[in-house]
Amino acid sequence: MKNVSELMDFRPGIKVVDATLRDGGLVNDFFFPEGFAKALYEANVKAGVDYMEFGYKADKEMFDLSKYGPSKFCDEDYIRSVVGDNDTALKIAVMADVGRCNYKNDIIENKDSAVDLIRVACYLNQIPAAIDMIEDAHKKGYETSCNIMAISTAQENDIKTALEFIGKSPVDVIYIVDSYGSIYPEAMARIVDVYKEVADKYGKKLGIHAHDNQKLAFANTIECVGDGVDYLDATYLSMGRGAGNCAMELLLGLLHNPKYNLYPVFDFIEKNMLPMREKGVVWGYDLQYLMTGLFNQHPRAAIQFTKEKRTDITDFYTEMMGLD
Amino acid sequence: MKNVSELMDFRPGIKVVDATLRDGGLVNDFFFPEGFAKALYEANVKAGVDYMEFGYKADKEMFDLSKYGPSKFCDEDYIRSVVGDNDTALKIAVMADVGRCNYKNDIIENKDSAVDLIRVACYLNQIPAAIDMIEDAHKKGYETSCNIMAISTAQENDIKTALEFIGKSPVDVIYIVDSYGSIYPEAMARIVDVYKEVADKYGKKLGIHAHDNQKLAFANTIECVGDGVDYLDATYLSMGRGAGNCAMELLLGLLHNPKYNLYPVFDFIEKNMLPMREKGVVWGYDLQYLMTGLFNQHPRAAIQFTKEKRTDITDFYTEMMGLD
Repeated sequence: MKNVSELMDFRPGIKVVDATLRDGGLVNDFFFPEGFAKALYEANVKAGVDYMEFGYKADKEMFDLSKYGPSKFCDEDYIRSVVGDNDTALKIAVMADVGRCNYKNDIIENKDSAVDLIRVACYLNQIPAAIDMIEDAHKKGYETSCNIMAISTAQENDIKTALEFIGKSPVDVIYIVDSYGSIYPEAMARIVDVYKEVADKYGKKLGIHAHDNQKLAFANTIECVGDGVDYLDATYLSMGRGAGNCAMELLLGLLHNPKYNLYPVFDFIEKNMLPMREKGVVWGYDLQYLMTGLFNQHPRAAIQFTKEKRTDITDFYTEMMGLD
Repeated sequence: MKNVSELMDFRPGIKVVDATLRDGGLVNDFFFPEGFAKALYEANVKAGVDYMEFGYKADKEMFDLSKYGPSKFCDEDYIRSVVGDNDTALKIAVMADVGRCNYKNDIIENKDSAVDLIRVACYLNQIPAAIDMIEDAHKKGYETSCNIMAISTAQENDIKTALEFIGKSPVDVIYIVDSYGSIYPEAMARIVDVYKEVADKYGKKLGIHAHDNQKLAFANTIECVGDGVDYLDATYLSMGRGAGNCAMELLLGLLHNPKYNLYPVFDFIEKNMLPMREKGVVWGYDLQYLMTGLFNQHPRAAIQFTKEKRTDITDFYTEMMGLD
């Protein structure tokens, strides 16, 4: 149990990372309304958010430019069109997926870029490639994080081995990622223990990226805050793949650093997100996502169920139970 | 931190209490569709739920019979029309509010009643009246619980004093009630400590009734399970006042006692609740409830906001901030 004083106080090292454009972009193929990214940037600055993730650095040879909005590729011009010289305390992040990013070409020197942090996302079997990307970004002058996905289906020993490799890399932040929203807070506390041992050994920071399949994204983030995790991902109105993420509006309500402000968050949501949702962009906790979370599965079947506007949840449950 | 073995195993003493008709009835003035209560009863039996709360024993001199559905009053005839002789393992509960229940007349001898458990709900300043009701119900042969509401606005010393009085009463279960959905899991752990000391001293069981204003109803219930709380309130699809409650479908997914089954829960929701919600019955987590939870306030202003279909959440936030 955490101390009362820790709850009342705040750790200055805590960093809030807005992932709305990136994880939210998985819902609408990154086609956000005109002016959305700019308004979000301004809201983040006013709210005291520490990092804003603009999207992916996706390889244009692999992905059709016409099929995605600009946050899928995060060209410098696009980011600059929103942030200008970014003369603010808000840092800019992008995600680079192992195997889906031509990083040697597409990630330029940091001194010429609007981006501060490169977040390298990988699966457990892609660690050497991830480390190559981390080293490349580090040499170019970026802050870096490593986000190992889908750890809830991995063996603890494999995770430990991977963490040792990553610990020896120049990465700054190692992320705990609950891709399937299947982890309960008590299990999360044990996972933090595993990550923290390596982080302390190699002088790394830890981060948490949670999903809301069992309405536990915020609770798991709270658990992590109490356990010493510093980088906290959140999205406005929980916008993100499937059940979505830890809500920015919940997270800033929890944190006590006086630099954080809730009003700009609600203002942005009211003006930019409620109208978008009204027009039919769908995400968030629902029964089908509960099921994939409970069964520790990728949400793709639930996303399909949602797209088809199916309501036969018992049939879906039976389908889930029948999967080998 | 709890032990892994405790998470994998189960405590046979855990009791799941379905509060859908009671807390959910606050959303629709207890006017559920024809056949709803019967289908819910059958789902609860199949799902292995331990108690089903049918509603309130409200005083008919205080409340107009024509303005509420039958679960507001829970006449024996009404309950019998659903459960017959209730030849099942599912026990029946009703709630009796201090000051709003003519308990001496309206609660008959247990041997003549379909009800097993009387849940006495009170505020901290109503303890003597609550104890009188508990003694009355106990003498008539019922199991009893005491549900002290709105403890998040009370002083810990006052709570301790109240618990001492209740501990000396014949009550079986003392409930922790997070009426405003304002309690974080770490604070919940400390509250359980306070309640558990008294419960252990007097040989009482503990219960948890959570609200979802900050999407923490399930997380707080998980916290309580780990801390030794046995009676767990839940509602199907979280149906309950304002932001609603801990979801039955999430809770049964967590518990490992093989007597619990999820399928009948999803089946009931698909056939009886999704159509009801489609017709415009509104409840569940939303920004206005987040705000009353965050500010530790009764949700009535947020319920009003919802009823009026307002979308000016920043104005509502300002109104909340301006309250003295």
